[in-house]
Amino acid sequence: MAKVAAARSAMVDEGAAAPVDLGELSELLGYALKRAQLKLYEDFLKCVAPLQLTPAQFSVLMLLEKNPGRNQTEVAGALGILRPNFVAMLDGLESRGLCSRARSATDRRSHVLSLTEKGRQALARARKIIASKHEARLGALLGSADRTALLRILNKIAQEF
Amino acid sequence: MAKVAAARSAMVDEGAAAPVDLGELSELLGYALKRAQLKLYEDFLKCVAPLQLTPAQFSVLMLLEKNPGRNQTEVAGALGILRPNFVAMLDGLESRGLCSRARSATDRRSHVLSLTEKGRQALARARKIIASKHEARLGALLGSADRTALLRILNKIAQEF
Repeated sequence: MAKVAAARSAMVDEGAAAPVDLGELSELLGYALKRAQLKLYEDFLKCVAPLQLTPAQFSVLMLLEKNPGRNQTEVAGALGILRPNFVAMLDGLESRGLCSRARSATDRRSHVLSLTEKGRQALARARKIIASKHEARLGALLGSADRTALLRILNKIAQEF
Repeated sequence: MAKVAAARSAMVDEGAAAPVDLGELSELLGYALKRAQLKLYEDFLKCVAPLQLTPAQFSVLMLLEKNPGRNQTEVAGALGILRPNFVAMLDGLESRGLCSRARSATDRRSHVLSLTEKGRQALARARKIIASKHEARLGALLGSADRTALLRILNKIAQEF
């Protein structure tokens, strides 16, 4: 007790500011979602820093591996990325030799995307890091039941809201 | 059965592309969080379109109302917004007459923030819209138990991950 009181009074003596009160913000789902998302985003970047991949770039590589020969519009649409942003992202991935674009044989206005061998290797390394560090640590924090519940509720929002 | 088969064959006849397969992406929490967050973000913007406020601007106004007289560093820190982004956001809010900055009496290098009367009115309107449209609709979709669980799990990630 004495220790706590001393610590508290020391804080007051040093003029330490009281924490900012979040008020109703802490009850808003949109705010909570954004804060949690930022945390995961930062941890993702830290984990795959050696590979220099953002979560969005990682998603694109995953999709290209799973769906070879799709065109830009399909892949951008599946990921919910706006076309101009997607084109810029592909430019970056292509200049690093991770994916390639080719004119479609059936529709000359459309570009067919595929993963290069280098892209496939980068993806395999990233996938291993994400599973063993990022997602594993998150799963350990939440526990299996909460992890499952969170995924179910988030997917419901993404699909039905 | 016949109806389903007919519909399926019609789709194939029209050459409709099969949906892109998300594969493992649909099992990653970071991806699910980002998709749900985007949905909420877009709905927020649509709901408060008459007021032209982003979720981040709304958060700043809420915090200024609840914590008058705090400085830029404290408010930016509480919201997890990087300083250059925060300064740009304040410039925008100040030029619209929604908040004001004044040099601190105790520390001339620091700026003390407060809500203007116009800012207070905009916040009151936004808060009403968000509660009655955005959050109400989301609460109805999720139900009370899932809403509570989601908030709890997200706060755990934001604070402990």
